[in-house]
Parts: sequence; structure tokens; C-alpha cells
Amino acid sequence: MDKLSLQNPVFATYVVAATIMILKAVSMSWLTVLRMMQVKGGFRSPEDIKKTRLNPDPNPKQLEPNERVERIRRIQLNDIENLPFFLIAGLLFVLTEPSLLLARWLLYGYVVSRLLHFTANFTARTHDTRATLWTVGSLILIFMTGRTLVAALGY
Amino acid sequence: MDKLSLQNPVFATYVVAATIMILKAVSMSWLTVLRMMQVKGGFRSPEDIKKTRLNPDPNPKQLEPNERVERIRRIQLNDIENLPFFLIAGLLFVLTEPSLLLARWLLYGYVVSRLLHFTANFTARTHDTRATLWTVGSLILIFMTGRTLVAALGY
Amino acid sequence: MDKLSLQNPVFATYVVAATIMILKAVSMSWLTVLRMMQVKGGFRSPEDIKKTRLNPDPNPKQLEPNERVERIRRIQLNDIENLPFFLIAGLLFVLTEPSLLLARWLLYGYVVSRLLHFTANFTARTHDTRATLWTVGSLILIFMTGRTLVAALGY
Repeated sequence: MDKLSLQNPVFATYVVAATIMILKAVSMSWLTVLRMMQVKGGFRSPEDIKKTRLNPDPNPKQLEPNERVERIRRIQLNDIENLPFFLIAGLLFVLTEPSLLLARWLLYGYVVSRLLHFTANFTARTHDTRATLWTVGSLILIFMTGRTLVAALGY
Repeated sequence: MDKLSLQNPVFATYVVAATIMILKAVSMSWLTVLRMMQVKGGFRSPEDIKKTRLNPDPNPKQLEPNERVERIRRIQLNDIENLPFFLIAGLLFVLTEPSLLLARWLLYGYVVSRLLHFTANFTARTHDTRATLWTVGSLILIFMTGRTLVAALGY
Repeated sequence: MDKLSLQNPVFATYVVAATIMILKAVSMSWLTVLRMMQVKGGFRSPEDIKKTRLNPDPNPKQLEPNERVERIRRIQLNDIENLPFFLIAGLLFVLTEPSLLLARWLLYGYVVSRLLHFTANFTARTHDTRATLWTVGSLILIFMTGRTLVAALGY
């Protein structure tokens, strides 16, 4: 059977996990936009304090960092440090033809760990909570990647 | 037919869009280098103000942010927040075997929106122009990803 | 033969290169964690100076940038500006069925250039050394991507 067909349940599992993670990452940009509109600030480009329809009453203070916006930017930075590597590692892992059960635990486990990590970060839980959730995801990523490397070296 | 063969016009469309986006992203690094050489500054590492062949006349001010360099860094940050997700989402979308017409509109539409977004950002157009162009690309990305997720859940 | 099978030596070469790069990227996060624990600082979120088991003796100075931590963050930023694009470009390049010899030179050459770049950055070598090593990797990436684009346009 075609390994990259949605009829392959292992690949379909990967596609579900990957697309959820992509939608999650993209929504961080929209959340940044939303918060910049709410606080009318947290902008970064000098031209963003020009008077426009979306910014009818500009002010140089709009270029100062705003913690409500910065929090989302930190979450997004954490996403881009992690998710692109998960997306490729997951695809390559699936191509090594793991069991469906293992693929589901690892891929969905990663998704759950990242969604909980987002919640902890968004609601400013303690560092220890956030670090624990991040660690779960990172260990899943390392395990999948290491197993794929061993499989590739075995040929 | 092999879905990942260049003889598959949908896949070839993806490859053209993806490689243009990768070359675009890579050229941001070179543009940063070019501008750092032009302004002889905008560096970030403490060791970059050591006297070397490429920096014969070092000065601590070279470590201060320089807006001409910072603009390119912001563009590059926007790229890495968006393009890796487009590259994977596009690949998975193509694997769901969409029509060639739809694939061309979405994939090339994304490329065009990003190149215009770059131009608007590079030439410091108003926030509203930049935001509109970013929105077009983001909506294409969300549509492709959502459609792929629905297809994967349908099996 | 299945182009995405580990029995295809060109694909296996890509998988080895890609997984090494992913493990390298992930280890930057762990190195950041390690250094933050060593210097008990370099944190970024306001809640990270709450008293917890991992931070029993908090202090507002822990939120100030710490150069030992910032160096790893700069290395990680350089990774996320480069590696996701290499990972996709390499995969697409492999799908154009290059010769095994060429694939090995380019893919392993990229890995070696990035590991040397890391070493130069980690040990604070001069900008010129770091820039030369980065350039090697970037040229390999541009070559692979350009060749893939030409192949796709040829159909």
C-alpha cells in the first residue's frame, strides 16, 4: 500500500497531528494581531505609527513592548523552535512504518503536550509546569527522531 | 501515477512554489549580511567587534541595533513564522490529490501574496497594506491545512 | 523502487542528514535550559521569578539577559532561520532522483558545515570564521533548491 495515502492509518494519524499543529502555530499570529488591536500597541515597525484606517490615532508609545503582546510572541517563538522539527521528524518516522499504536501515542501525545504547554504559558502558570510539559514534547520528538536515524543507519 | 513525481502536475506546482519560497527565505539572510556590510554595524555577537579582515576598524557601536538591518530581521522573522508551515501544509495538501486548478490558485496565490508582503515591508508601506497582504497568505494556509485535516479525518 | 523507502540509498542519506540536523536543533533548547540552570537566570517570562521547586530563591535580576544564555539563543535562532528550509529542500531534492554521490556530498556537506558553524559560534570564534562556515551551508542549500526548481520547471 502507498505509505503516503490517507488510507494508511499511520499516515492519516500523522496528517491529523501535523495539521492541528500547523493550525495552532498559525493561530498564534492571529492572537498576536488580536492583542495588538486590543492594547492598540506592541507594534515593531516604525511605519506602524503612521495614521491609517486601522490606526486612526497613532502614538510613539505604540512601538514599546507590551507584555500582553510579548507573551504571545514568546509562545510563537517557542512554536517555531519546536514545531517545524516535529513536522519533519513525524513524517520521516511514519515512513519507517511504525506500528499504528506507537504512532498514535507519540504523535497525539506530542499534540496534547503542546496544547497543554500553550495553556500553561498563556495563563502564566509557573515555570515548573511549563517546563514539564515542554519536556514531554521534546522527549517524544527526540525518541521519534532517534528511532528514525537508527532505522536509516540500519540499511 | 506516483503522487510525488514531477510528472504529476499538482506535485510539480507545489515544488515550484516551495522552492521559490525557500530561495526567498534564504535570500533574507544574504540581504541581512549585505546591509550589515553597508552600514558596518547591526551585529549581535560580542566577538563581532574583534578586528578581522572583514571588520578592519571595529567599534562597540557596531553592536547597536541598526534600523536598516532590523527591518530585514523582522521580515526574516515573519518568514520563519510562516513559511515552514506553508511548506509542510502544501506538501500534505498535494497528497490529498486536489484539482490542478485549485492547487495552482492556492500555491501560487500564496507565493504572490508573500512576495508582495515582502515588497510592502521592505519599502515601509503602511501597516494596513502589509497586514492585508499577510492576511491573504494566512487565509490560504489555513484553508489548505483545514481541508487536509478534514480529508484525513474522513478516513 | 519506492523513492521514499530506506532501501533507496539516496533517501536513506537524506534521512540520516535530516535526523542529525533535527537532533542538533532540539539540543539547542536543552543547552539553553542547562545554561539557564547554571547561571540561575536569563529567563524571559515574568512568572519565572515566582518561587518554585526549580527556582527556590527567585530574584528580579533573573529576567535580565545573560550572555551565556543569549549565545545559545542566537545559535538557535540561526538554526531556525536555516534548518527548516534545508529539511524541505533536501526532501524535494531527493525526490528529483539525484546521483547518490552528489546527494551524499551535498547533504553530508551541509551537516558538517552546520556542526562546524555551531562549534565556531559556541566557542566565540571570529565573525569571519563563523561567516565562512555559514556561507558553505547556505550555498549548498541554494544549489539544491535551485536544481530542484529547474527540474520542476522542466516538466
